Amino acid sequence: MSGEGEFGYIRRRLAPLASGYTGAFNLTDDAAVLAVPVGCELVVTSDTLIEGVHFLPGDPPETVAVKALRVSLSDLAAMGAEPHAAMLSISWPRDGSTDLRDRFTDGLAEELSVRAVPLIGGDTTVTPGPWTITGTLFGSLPAGSAVRRAGARAGDHVYVTGTIGDAGLGLLSLQGEAGLGAAVERYRIPPVRTALASHLRGRANAMIDISDGLAADAGHLSTVSQVALDVTLADLPLSGTARDWVARQDDPDIARARLAGYGDDYELLFCAPADCHHAIQRAARETGIPITRIGQVKKGEGVRLLDGSGAPVQIDSAGFTHF
Amino acid sequence: MSGEGEFGYIRRRLAPLASGYTGAFNLTDDAAVLAVPVGCELVVTSDTLIEGVHFLPGDPPETVAVKALRVSLSDLAAMGAEPHAAMLSISWPRDGSTDLRDRFTDGLAEELSVRAVPLIGGDTTVTPGPWTITGTLFGSLPAGSAVRRAGARAGDHVYVTGTIGDAGLGLLSLQGEAGLGAAVERYRIPPVRTALASHLRGRANAMIDISDGLAADAGHLSTVSQVALDVTLADLPLSGTARDWVARQDDPDIARARLAGYGDDYELLFCAPADCHHAIQRAARETGIPITRIGQVKKGEGVRLLDGSGAPVQIDSAGFTHF
Repeated sequence: MSGEGEFGYIRRRLAPLASGYTGAFNLTDDAAVLAVPVGCELVVTSDTLIEGVHFLPGDPPETVAVKALRVSLSDLAAMGAEPHAAMLSISWPRDGSTDLRDRFTDGLAEELSVRAVPLIGGDTTVTPGPWTITGTLFGSLPAGSAVRRAGARAGDHVYVTGTIGDAGLGLLSLQGEAGLGAAVERYRIPPVRTALASHLRGRANAMIDISDGLAADAGHLSTVSQVALDVTLADLPLSGTARDWVARQDDPDIARARLAGYGDDYELLFCAPADCHHAIQRAARETGIPITRIGQVKKGEGVRLLDGSGAPVQIDSAGFTHF
Repeated sequence: MSGEGEFGYIRRRLAPLASGYTGAFNLTDDAAVLAVPVGCELVVTSDTLIEGVHFLPGDPPETVAVKALRVSLSDLAAMGAEPHAAMLSISWPRDGSTDLRDRFTDGLAEELSVRAVPLIGGDTTVTPGPWTITGTLFGSLPAGSAVRRAGARAGDHVYVTGTIGDAGLGLLSLQGEAGLGAAVERYRIPPVRTALASHLRGRANAMIDISDGLAADAGHLSTVSQVALDVTLADLPLSGTARDWVARQDDPDIARARLAGYGDDYELLFCAPADCHHAIQRAARETGIPITRIGQVKKGEGVRLLDGSGAPVQIDSAGFTHF
């Protein structure tokens, strides 16, 4: 990394992002002191993004910064937590330009400002490998109110926020598939569902954010909750781009199952008792974040993606198929 | 990374390291809930190690794990904090063997066990670049008692723990220099000065851990504290290996100044009022960790490394020199 050194960069560009958080000591110290809001507890999550793995070399540095924060904000929202503070460990590529660093930092500053999240620490290094960023995000919530992956009960409704499969279609577009350009933004910039956290605490019995894909993450929730999840493919919320894409495929339910297999949605999937349905609809209206009921929790184990006849669509070696 | 997948590895090898920490949820959730001990506050620090930059390709994977934890334990000790919990984001090299992973995890498990530190989260990924590990360590200390880099006052004594320059000599040895084999261990495995934390809280006015080298880190402390530090080179505590190395150099003070320029000591450098001297000597005896007085805090700015005549040795373009 050319230009000013590590310390100059931290002092000039990062330290201002710590202002207002007493325990961050303007990023001049060995560690930060965490302030826990009265009556609250802190939650913490960490995610690593690697160029060429979790984002593409052509992605704008500004959106890489936003993604680095949002993948963890999504984890916090899935616990029912509001963001509290961020740490960032950045390994700059050895041949990276100051333009890369400046544009990344611009995106970082903008997103931290919009979310009112102070930067309280981290590390900067230079790597001979690809650009690598580990974000560690702290969230706060009323003590004892964390929503877990465990806790779903037979009879609960299964809900999902936003739309499913767009990030995967965006990646396909960047890899050359036609007609999917509108989805690129969703691959680069995950949505933020933080506004729902306070509405879902005390209502959702279990929640997870969708990073590995709806089917896989529903599977994680079902395993930890020790229940089965039935998801009706026709009920998956789809963007216009995704609906058009489904219409171009041979079999709409197999196509929807593929969308449920794509990663990087960063939507919330949660299970809540049926008597919370009106409160959940109200939360969607108040936050402007769409919430769609897509299935039902049952006794048993595993996830079933159901086609129009109520039969499960499954994955075999050739991909998804009707069983 | 061949063998079992990410989830299997986390369940089999990492989840047991989380046991006993309720809010870690056996590493099955999106985030961990931090438990703050009564009357305490938490501090947090993050450090990234990259193969070929912060450790060598030939280093045993077990010691890489120990180093990944200890570089951050050192930051915690420098705040006067005892370790509370760890998070680890590991990017495995794409061509890494399961032997690498298993040996790293063995070292990790051993060190976490010895330090009684639970693993409460993190991330595992695979990178096309070099093996990269970001450790995020939480420490706890009585509320309001954090020792900072700021706070040193004119008249304070300057102290340092252990010995200086051995890690640098160990690196020289690994790069082929003869007669320094005994120092290799100190390059690979930083010391742990945690036992001093409780003794130095309330006594040290300012403290920093030495990662960039004694001279550079004394400089960081002097900048933040807005004082000058005078260090007498003849007083630097040296190991037998380092003493022998100094004896082989042309000029002993220039040689000691070079040792003060080497990084990776992970010793503590701190400033304390003169009337704490006996308490500090007692702390050294009780913990078995050597503490040596090496200088004095003065009004002014910057660090002066003083030779036998009391004149400063300085760095010019050809290296250290007498002025």
